[in-house]
Amino acid sequence: MQFIACQQKKKKMKILENKPKITLVGAGPGDIELITLKGINAIKSADVILYDALVNEELLDFAPNAKKIFVGKRRGYKAFSQEEINQLIVDQAFLYGHVVRLKGGDSFVFGRGFEEILHAEAFNIPTTVVPGISSSISVPALAGIPVTHRGVSNSFFVLTGTLTDGSLNPEIEIAAQSSATVVILMGLSKLNEITKIYKKFGKSEEAVAVVSNGSLSNQISVVGTIDSITENAANIPAPGVIVIGPVVELSNVWKDKEYLFDLLKF
Amino acid sequence: MQFIACQQKKKKMKILENKPKITLVGAGPGDIELITLKGINAIKSADVILYDALVNEELLDFAPNAKKIFVGKRRGYKAFSQEEINQLIVDQAFLYGHVVRLKGGDSFVFGRGFEEILHAEAFNIPTTVVPGISSSISVPALAGIPVTHRGVSNSFFVLTGTLTDGSLNPEIEIAAQSSATVVILMGLSKLNEITKIYKKFGKSEEAVAVVSNGSLSNQISVVGTIDSITENAANIPAPGVIVIGPVVELSNVWKDKEYLFDLLKF
Repeated sequence: MQFIACQQKKKKMKILENKPKITLVGAGPGDIELITLKGINAIKSADVILYDALVNEELLDFAPNAKKIFVGKRRGYKAFSQEEINQLIVDQAFLYGHVVRLKGGDSFVFGRGFEEILHAEAFNIPTTVVPGISSSISVPALAGIPVTHRGVSNSFFVLTGTLTDGSLNPEIEIAAQSSATVVILMGLSKLNEITKIYKKFGKSEEAVAVVSNGSLSNQISVVGTIDSITENAANIPAPGVIVIGPVVELSNVWKDKEYLFDLLKF
Repeated sequence: MQFIACQQKKKKMKILENKPKITLVGAGPGDIELITLKGINAIKSADVILYDALVNEELLDFAPNAKKIFVGKRRGYKAFSQEEINQLIVDQAFLYGHVVRLKGGDSFVFGRGFEEILHAEAFNIPTTVVPGISSSISVPALAGIPVTHRGVSNSFFVLTGTLTDGSLNPEIEIAAQSSATVVILMGLSKLNEITKIYKKFGKSEEAVAVVSNGSLSNQISVVGTIDSITENAANIPAPGVIVIGPVVELSNVWKDKEYLFDLLKF
C-alpha cells in the first residue's frame, strides 16, 4: 500500500513537472548542420517532437527519449490538417510538457508557424520561436548566388508561388516590375506562368536559376533566361527554389554555361 | 645542426599543410546560440578569423588558438576599407591556411560577402559559404512578428534603407506599392523619408515596428502607424530593423499597445 501511494505521488509530481510549453524550431534547408545551436538545445530538452516532411530526420537523434510524431505530407497524402496539427501541439503539451515543433527552413516563411503560436496562446501555453535558416536566402547562396550584391541588387523579394487555393500568387506581377532579386518558393509547377508575367514586362532576357534539393548531396542547379528556363528546368525535381535577377549571372553555374555557349560558337 | 634542420623541415611541412581556403560564416543576429552547427565547426577549424562589429565576440572562444582580426567599424571609424578586407583575407589564407570570415546575420544579405568570394576566386583560393540567420526574418520573428502569415501576407520584400552614397534606396517606392511585408535594414536614420513615401501612396495607417538590438537581452520593439512611428521610435538606438505591413498587428507588442489605447479612452 505504501509502495502504491509512493508511485502515485511520483506520478502526480511528474504531471506537475510537465508544465506545458511549445518551441517552434526552424530546422533549416535540409543539411543537418544548418540548424542553430539553440534549435539543437530545444530538441534535446523536448518531451515531444512534431516534425514535417522537409525536416532532416537525423535531427531526431538528438532527442532519443522524446516522443516523435510525423505530421507532414507523404506521397501527396496529408496525415493531419493544419487545424489538427494546431490542436495536437496543444494536447501533447498538456500531456507531456515541452513540445518542439520542428519545421523545414524558418517557421515564419510560409511555414504556418504563427497559426500554431496563436492557437497555443489561446490556451495560455507559453511559446518560443527559434529562427531557422530560410531556404529563400540559403538555397541561392549554396548554389553560388548572393540575393544581394553591391551595384547589382539592393533588395530581394520572397514570394510563395502557389496560394492556398492552388492559384498563382498575383503579387508576382509587382515583383516582376521591381529591380529586386525575386525568390519564389513552392513555384516550380507554376514556372511557365511566372515566365509569362516577366515576358509581359519585357524581361525575356532576365537570368533565372532553379535549385532543387538545396543544401543536400543531391542538390541540382539549372540556369537560363526567362525565355529558356521552362525548357531547361523541365525535368528538375521538386521542391525547387526559383531565383530571378542579374545576381544569377554572378554564379559559377551561369559562367560555366556562358563558357559552354562560347565553345559552341566555334 | 641536425636540430635546426629538423625545425626547418617542420616549418616547411607546416607551410605545405596551410593550404589556403576561405569560409564565409554568417554569425546570425547577435544571440550566440543563433549560429549554425556548421558555422561553429568552421570556427573551430579556423587558423585565422576576421570578424565584424555586429558579431558576438563570445563566438571567438570556440577557436582559442586562431589568430583574430577585427575588421569592423568602431565609433564610426572603419579600420579597413572593403578592398583592404578583400586582400587581407587572401593574404591571411596564403600565410596561415583556413580563414573564417565571420559576419553578422547572413553574408549575402547586404553583407558584401560575395565581393570577398570573387576576390578570393581571382587567386584560385577555394571558398565555402555557411548561411547565417538573417536579421531580416529573425529579428521580426523574435519581436513576435511573422514576415508571412496565411491570409495576411504571402510575400516579404527586404531592402537596405541606405545606398553606398548615403542616399535612400529608391526601390522603397516599389516596395510601398506592393502588398508584401516590407523589411528595411540600415534604414533607421531614413525613417522619416520612408514614411513620406508610404503617405504618398495613401498608406498612413499601415502598421510599422522598429526593433533594435534584436535577439539580444536589450532588444526593444516600438510599434505605430506610418503616421506615428517617426515620433514613437525617435529615441530607439541603431541598429534597428523596420517592419511595415499588417503582420505587425499580429504581434503582442501591437496588441498591448491597442489595449493601452483602449484603457486611455476611459
